[in-house]
Amino acid sequence: MEELLKWNGWGYKDSRFLVKDGIIHFSGSRYPIGELSLPYFTQWVEDVLGVDLSKPHTSKDQPVEEECPYPLISNDNYKQIVHLNVPFSTKGIDRLMRAHGHTVYDIYTLKESFFDRIPDVVLWPSCHGDVVKIVDAADKNNMVVIPFGGGTSVTGAVECPKDEMRTIISLDTSQMNKILWVDRENLVICCESGIIGQDLERELHTMGFTVGHEPDSYEFSSLGGWVATRASGMKKNTYGNIEDLLVHVKMVTPKGVLEKNCQVPRMSCGPDFNHIVLGSEGCLGVITEVILKIRPLPKMKKYGSVVFPDFESGVRCMREVAKQRCQPASIRLMDNAQFKFGQSLRPVPGYFGLIFDGLKKLYIKKIKGFNFDSICVMTLLFEGDVKDVQMQEKKIYEIGSKFGGIPAGQTNGERGYMLTFVIAYIRVGFLIFRNPRFMICI
Amino acid sequence: MEELLKWNGWGYKDSRFLVKDGIIHFSGSRYPIGELSLPYFTQWVEDVLGVDLSKPHTSKDQPVEEECPYPLISNDNYKQIVHLNVPFSTKGIDRLMRAHGHTVYDIYTLKESFFDRIPDVVLWPSCHGDVVKIVDAADKNNMVVIPFGGGTSVTGAVECPKDEMRTIISLDTSQMNKILWVDRENLVICCESGIIGQDLERELHTMGFTVGHEPDSYEFSSLGGWVATRASGMKKNTYGNIEDLLVHVKMVTPKGVLEKNCQVPRMSCGPDFNHIVLGSEGCLGVITEVILKIRPLPKMKKYGSVVFPDFESGVRCMREVAKQRCQPASIRLMDNAQFKFGQSLRPVPGYFGLIFDGLKKLYIKKIKGFNFDSICVMTLLFEGDVKDVQMQEKKIYEIGSKFGGIPAGQTNGERGYMLTFVIAYIRVGFLIFRNPRFMICI
Repeated sequence: MEELLKWNGWGYKDSRFLVKDGIIHFSGSRYPIGELSLPYFTQWVEDVLGVDLSKPHTSKDQPVEEECPYPLISNDNYKQIVHLNVPFSTKGIDRLMRAHGHTVYDIYTLKESFFDRIPDVVLWPSCHGDVVKIVDAADKNNMVVIPFGGGTSVTGAVECPKDEMRTIISLDTSQMNKILWVDRENLVICCESGIIGQDLERELHTMGFTVGHEPDSYEFSSLGGWVATRASGMKKNTYGNIEDLLVHVKMVTPKGVLEKNCQVPRMSCGPDFNHIVLGSEGCLGVITEVILKIRPLPKMKKYGSVVFPDFESGVRCMREVAKQRCQPASIRLMDNAQFKFGQSLRPVPGYFGLIFDGLKKLYIKKIKGFNFDSICVMTLLFEGDVKDVQMQEKKIYEIGSKFGGIPAGQTNGERGYMLTFVIAYIRVGFLIFRNPRFMICI
Repeated sequence: MEELLKWNGWGYKDSRFLVKDGIIHFSGSRYPIGELSLPYFTQWVEDVLGVDLSKPHTSKDQPVEEECPYPLISNDNYKQIVHLNVPFSTKGIDRLMRAHGHTVYDIYTLKESFFDRIPDVVLWPSCHGDVVKIVDAADKNNMVVIPFGGGTSVTGAVECPKDEMRTIISLDTSQMNKILWVDRENLVICCESGIIGQDLERELHTMGFTVGHEPDSYEFSSLGGWVATRASGMKKNTYGNIEDLLVHVKMVTPKGVLEKNCQVPRMSCGPDFNHIVLGSEGCLGVITEVILKIRPLPKMKKYGSVVFPDFESGVRCMREVAKQRCQPASIRLMDNAQFKFGQSLRPVPGYFGLIFDGLKKLYIKKIKGFNFDSICVMTLLFEGDVKDVQMQEKKIYEIGSKFGGIPAGQTNGERGYMLTFVIAYIRVGFLIFRNPRFMICI
């Protein structure tokens, strides 16, 4: 995985924004906007952000070994680490890549300067037992352990404290990525914590199941990270957030392994320590194994959208949907700026496309009396049996129409969700093509 | 409320089993089986339990003051309690009534002997501030506080430790029973913890709302108790368990008041201390105020039932419903013994009733080939909009038919749920009319 990813920005190396002949393109074939020329987006960037695309900003090259700080590690501690018999590295680039998450601050620092403190050694345990050994050795030898999963943290949880003088171990869970067992009868799955979201879902799909947890980071974030950050997914209305999916979690702490000794999804008696592990951000221990609920794959998956004359109407519709508790798998409201931004990501249309586009625009603008500069869009994702989906659609579109909304098709809906996966790429793009006025706040 | 309830058994004084002319009756008009002669039930009790109804067991009378142990309370502590300016009592019967919950052990002890230790003083705070004063005084003066809500605990949480030599305060929340505010926009309600389930729902219904939390004890149990015991309700499939309904909780501990300083229903960051309060059974502090989610009252409420040829078919159907996640508000499977027991609670039929009954029995027995001694029943409760309910019904009955189930009408369903409210009365009845062979295990 590591070889495929950028060292100083979000996601895959082959997927990024480029400017050719003054027009923005997105490279690679991984995303729907890949290998496409994006003239509307180009215009939007120039008009709305005032960016001069002819002047890309060049950022720092990947640092060579000599530029990285020497690891703070005594000979004794080094011996302890060798003795663990767990793969490790003290190379600068390995340590730098685990010194940060993916906040704007993190990426800006990578591109422009350097972190005050980075881990001293990276360890790659391959199982729960390895983690027990590492945490035990760290505890006995006064070393710090920072668990590291997919590295997509936006909370600062993997940041090394500036003044930390003890040896900092970055415990990388990427090699603990196995599905340990699947219980098709009780619909639960047990995995090691390092498994990445898209890998977990790919495996499960081949068996006819899904977890249904899709945070925006789901291509790169790990199961352990989901639990440690109490993650929410865009389909949580149907599948629940990670705390609803979590049946059992094993966490290695310096005081021993914390886990319940049964797998029931709920116990009335006593405090629920799952909720102490959830959101603990790696501060209390290292999550090694997780049991999650799974479901049979939905028979149908369908996008949708509703256009409203203004944001207020959209908000009132969303409130009514919430009141009636009939949220489909995902429902989001984009304001006018977001809507225009999403629209700008469409490729060059052919001749017929143009006319069709124009007609639709006319329809919305003139016939319905909607103003393109005030409309907003609700994007929808329905999942379930065919009948369920039909019923859900009917209900949502009925409520929508009460607030002046008109169905605006599947494409607008799908584009909205595609945005969640490319948004972090776009941010990285804006660190290259900048409006200097906007850099003040960083 | 207290005057209406039995001192040594479940529920209302006016609602209990009596034997007239060898036939069991249930007194009072509070329940569907009230003021009815129950010949089938009489037969069932004699046949299945081998009880001789002509020999009721007489239990202890309510103890007089002299029979109750003297309260363990020093003059200094007594002064502290007087100084609190909160209503209190050291009367034996007040203390005895708060020395127990409603396990069989508790009720048997009341009827036959006495508890080893009962609280020394009962206090009735009227607001959060009173509780703060009480807990503070207890902490400073080495007294024990046991919070007491509806008194329906079945976990032993209100039991006084036998060897406790410190003064035990029973903190009775019954006077803290106000709805503090209702937010119709955000659909949340803030209540004092002592409010009783049925009172809360009655008030909310007049405003067009419901919480939808219905544990079997809901007529008598308190909101604070629901949170402290992490209660589940029979309609949890639609409304969620108490942890799903809980937005905010205020708990008075000896170290101060524990509460979140915002009312959002979910926070990703950090451990969720609501889940430490939930299930804490009064051990960590006194719950004083609770904010819960509410919903508009459902437009439709409908019972239903499905009869299966045997228990195994019923179980397989339930698993399929769980797999498809299409549980209605409530769904329960009664085995053959429970089914017969439920059937026995029907009143004397008229002539036509008898024939109709007989026909239905014949239909199930002969035409469908079902055996009355192996059939089991799934009871159902649907809630929602008319269309939702129709859709839910269709789905459940379709799944049911795949496992050989046939719809068996609303009455059978309703009888099943009625049972949940009378079951504790029945237990008390069996402590009066006993088969001595069955007493061994108590």
